[in-house]
Amino acid sequence: MSLLVVGSLAFDSVETPFGVVENALGGSATFFSYAASYFTSVRLVGVVGEDFPAEHRTLLESRDIDTSGLKTEPGGKTFRWKGKYEGDMNTAETLEVHLNVFGSFRPEIPAKFTDSPYIFLANGSPLTQLKVLEQAKERKLVVADTMNLWIETQPNELKELLKRIDGLVLNDGEARMLTGEVNLVRAGRKVLDLGPRFVIIKKGEHGAMFMSREETFVAPAYPVADVVDPTGAGDSFAGGFMGYLAATGRTDIQAFKTATAYGTVVASFLVEDFSLRRFLRADRSDIDRRLETYRSLLAF
Amino acid sequence: MSLLVVGSLAFDSVETPFGVVENALGGSATFFSYAASYFTSVRLVGVVGEDFPAEHRTLLESRDIDTSGLKTEPGGKTFRWKGKYEGDMNTAETLEVHLNVFGSFRPEIPAKFTDSPYIFLANGSPLTQLKVLEQAKERKLVVADTMNLWIETQPNELKELLKRIDGLVLNDGEARMLTGEVNLVRAGRKVLDLGPRFVIIKKGEHGAMFMSREETFVAPAYPVADVVDPTGAGDSFAGGFMGYLAATGRTDIQAFKTATAYGTVVASFLVEDFSLRRFLRADRSDIDRRLETYRSLLAF
Repeated sequence: MSLLVVGSLAFDSVETPFGVVENALGGSATFFSYAASYFTSVRLVGVVGEDFPAEHRTLLESRDIDTSGLKTEPGGKTFRWKGKYEGDMNTAETLEVHLNVFGSFRPEIPAKFTDSPYIFLANGSPLTQLKVLEQAKERKLVVADTMNLWIETQPNELKELLKRIDGLVLNDGEARMLTGEVNLVRAGRKVLDLGPRFVIIKKGEHGAMFMSREETFVAPAYPVADVVDPTGAGDSFAGGFMGYLAATGRTDIQAFKTATAYGTVVASFLVEDFSLRRFLRADRSDIDRRLETYRSLLAF
Repeated sequence: MSLLVVGSLAFDSVETPFGVVENALGGSATFFSYAASYFTSVRLVGVVGEDFPAEHRTLLESRDIDTSGLKTEPGGKTFRWKGKYEGDMNTAETLEVHLNVFGSFRPEIPAKFTDSPYIFLANGSPLTQLKVLEQAKERKLVVADTMNLWIETQPNELKELLKRIDGLVLNDGEARMLTGEVNLVRAGRKVLDLGPRFVIIKKGEHGAMFMSREETFVAPAYPVADVVDPTGAGDSFAGGFMGYLAATGRTDIQAFKTATAYGTVVASFLVEDFSLRRFLRADRSDIDRRLETYRSLLAF
């Protein structure tokens, strides 16, 4: 079934203990789309500037990602982010942010995308995320990402959003900030009290926890010896998760579990190199093989 | 098969966001023994002072823990520790340490214990741990715990120990300190290069990772909403792990996996109350039930 993502495309400059990359293709919608493209076709809505190279668009299209909702802002510049990771690389230090055309992004969903049943609202303002929902008429499963900035600056809009989505994806620090609970099980329960049917708390190198009212599923990170660049790991996780669900058309608990495992495994590939480089060398059979390894290393 | 533990018994005073406990029964050998006693009988070697109440000894004996190797030092006082946990409670702030009789502890293994095939060397100086090994003649599986203090002050003795044991249990910070590797997969591999057949890296609220040259097993923590006091969680994990192995007499990889899962589940009970209180209300069937829940929440 069709999967729609609305989010950012960016040029990322990243420094980690393993090297440096300048102006590489990044952004939440990019990582999400590529990850999801292992499972299904993707409809992408975003905005870039005139500096966005044609080859990036071609790359996305080669993955069966429909870029007809990717607007080029005349005279505009693409979103740029510069960051640095040190030590355990669990959190990025942001060195520079230039929102550019993404700062005034008002997503318009093309008419042919408004019937998308599976929707991922990548990190963005809750107000913008709500505007997307209004344009999507045949929603089956809507999942949103958020961040500390929105928890602080748009708490009411975020609460409104939480009543209208099926799932929320956020990291451990954000879950603690949103709920005031240090313990993640308690934090997860409080998120559920705010509306969504499920919440996924991402814990960086420690993996993720899926929680609904009925079920909890802990997904440790796939053990990776060479974490080169974690940028986009969370969005790739979400892409694997939603991609699997959209491909199967399922929204039952077993599907959520398998989707969480796929998200974990897809993200484990992404972090093994800068930008999308590791994805470019990985095909679906690599992912399925690692999924089976992951299954066996969890079994006892 | 017989399981021997050599380690500390202590009076713990602990403050957490959930309350305070004063002079409660604690110490690495205590937590280990009680946890292991869910699976097998235990032989305990340690030292206490004349202030150690008879009822503590009675409690241990009621669990089929042989305390004939528990020496009472005439005129001595029992080891005391005072600590505090805040925030995510992953690390204790030590407020007071009075080693007392434990400071001059030179473990003597009673003759009837020297044939123990399964041995756990709880946290102590590597020099002392080596002395225990010399006295144990029929070792089948020896696992040791260690800490930052020994990595810093007895690095050579620790390296000697690592060549002579089967498994090492340590936490993530200690693994990083011992190996100089931030990435835990790399850190684990470097520990294996130092000699042991396997290493278990404990990650507090994030669980544990078992690693041998052939296999890796990630065991996320069982999701507990009420972490009241994490004191002794690591030793309880080791107790569940070794207790299961000793009870089954196995040392194969499948047994290590199940043992890791049992260790995780046993520790998840311990942290739900202060000192040994939660253990006092849990029997083996509670542990087995939670093991099955744990198995199902990992399966996809």
